[in-house]
Amino acid sequence: MIENKKPKIAISIGDLNGIGIEIALKCHEEISSICQPIYCINNKMLKRACSELKIEIPNDFEIFKTKGEFEIKAGVVSKKSGKYSYDSFLDAINLANKKEVEAICTLPINKEAWNKADIKYKGHTEVLRDYFGKNAIMMLGCSSMFVALFTEHIPLKKVAKKIVEEDLTQFLIDFYNNVKTDNIAVLGLNPHASDNGVLGDEEIEIFKAIKKANKFLNKNIFNGPLVPDTAFSPNSRKNYKYFVAMYHDQGLAPLKALYFDESVNVSLNLPIIRTSVDHGTAFNIAYKNENVNTQSYINAIKEAINLIHIKK
Amino acid sequence: MIENKKPKIAISIGDLNGIGIEIALKCHEEISSICQPIYCINNKMLKRACSELKIEIPNDFEIFKTKGEFEIKAGVVSKKSGKYSYDSFLDAINLANKKEVEAICTLPINKEAWNKADIKYKGHTEVLRDYFGKNAIMMLGCSSMFVALFTEHIPLKKVAKKIVEEDLTQFLIDFYNNVKTDNIAVLGLNPHASDNGVLGDEEIEIFKAIKKANKFLNKNIFNGPLVPDTAFSPNSRKNYKYFVAMYHDQGLAPLKALYFDESVNVSLNLPIIRTSVDHGTAFNIAYKNENVNTQSYINAIKEAINLIHIKK
Repeated sequence: MIENKKPKIAISIGDLNGIGIEIALKCHEEISSICQPIYCINNKMLKRACSELKIEIPNDFEIFKTKGEFEIKAGVVSKKSGKYSYDSFLDAINLANKKEVEAICTLPINKEAWNKADIKYKGHTEVLRDYFGKNAIMMLGCSSMFVALFTEHIPLKKVAKKIVEEDLTQFLIDFYNNVKTDNIAVLGLNPHASDNGVLGDEEIEIFKAIKKANKFLNKNIFNGPLVPDTAFSPNSRKNYKYFVAMYHDQGLAPLKALYFDESVNVSLNLPIIRTSVDHGTAFNIAYKNENVNTQSYINAIKEAINLIHIKK
Repeated sequence: MIENKKPKIAISIGDLNGIGIEIALKCHEEISSICQPIYCINNKMLKRACSELKIEIPNDFEIFKTKGEFEIKAGVVSKKSGKYSYDSFLDAINLANKKEVEAICTLPINKEAWNKADIKYKGHTEVLRDYFGKNAIMMLGCSSMFVALFTEHIPLKKVAKKIVEEDLTQFLIDFYNNVKTDNIAVLGLNPHASDNGVLGDEEIEIFKAIKKANKFLNKNIFNGPLVPDTAFSPNSRKNYKYFVAMYHDQGLAPLKALYFDESVNVSLNLPIIRTSVDHGTAFNIAYKNENVNTQSYINAIKEAINLIHIKK
């Protein structure tokens, strides 16, 4: 049967007071044609959400029964909903870790709700790092352009000190081993990539890391350091699809300027494959039957399937 | 006569070994319909350039005879060409300072050539600051979106310390007085605009500066601090046309991702109006009759005219 060839993907259901479940239900038919989704939500909660949304539960909606029960309150930050979204995520991770699924795709959680539920993590990626004791690589993007972040959620003033040749070399090698693509742009840190040292000196470290990573891989995979403000110009994007940014906004501001609705969030360098939508719970439009944007979710599923193929 | 209503604009001719003069000649007819251009170049140099380019000198090509003479060498970094581009720029400034023109528009110079000619400045803006003893505001953009830079050509690690309430307040007030627009976005410094202080604390200074500037202007002109990576998303750009970025690449990477060819460079907060193309000398295609992009130059002239109107 052809059906058997479709990869199994566990879907963590996100904060049930937000738009995640609506997106999952609306996209079920479409994503079922390319994968076998297993939704981490129990029958009772699924029924409640569908009743609120006035959507019929699809016949082939396969679930993994994440335990818990609470009243859904559209758009409300709640302890119980925070806890349930966390448990749904853990169930999805466990399924992947036991190889019962080939990847997981996460719907949005609410950080404040996690905080209310006394969950010590700030988000999905932190949980994954702790669970696997491995340094996940955060990559965002869509089929036109992907950006990997060398540093992530740290104050801007702390970024420069993190640009250390050895760490960056390892990051580049790890990144290559996950995406297996042959032409990757690495950005400089400073304006004009320092103009040969006039505006900072971190480009020396970046240059050395690129050289060492290429030597280690025995191929000129990495190019740069690129001048950051022109790295994402139309001409530059003709040359590169994958970019390594030195810090959060350096990569994400251009990405979101260009591809806000299509982008997905990917955690690389872990024992499991995890992709995610690149938006939040959108509490303001939850359960209102507004036009929710499903593009990021569809793309997250597609990217999970892409990574499953690369891994094979 | 209608002709008299067209503003006079001095054009500094840029590095004559580069593409500036070709752009000026090719656009002369078009820009002459909206302004009265006065080109800072003497007859001899103009004839040499036209002969190299095989372009006839237009009949109505009004010049201000910048002194000097040298052999044009397409695409070569030269001391003499550097010196001439500097002198042409100074002539344009002087014309504006004496109110013989209402604005100046600068064609690209080569920084290395300036260096060879022992000119102590790194670029146009530095000369203007020194000439007028005033802190010019650098703004880049096009009719869809403009970005003003609170800090410019400094190493990234030095940016955070520059985010000081008092300086930023003054910058915002000066900026408003130049652009006279009612709805301006001010970006945060850190990822997620610090997530309420979790990722840095400079947003406190930014918030206070916004409040004080608005109070001083007696109107809610400035909004923010905006989360930097979503500030330039399509939805956010529906709300704002003018953005204040805290540092060079924060504003320019998204701008150049979106509007590379159309963008212009504007120096605000000076006694004179100066706009510029937002590209370099393109030595690689100079005098080759390749398709030079004239959009930035046309837009720079248009923006000069726009600023002349705001000033009146």
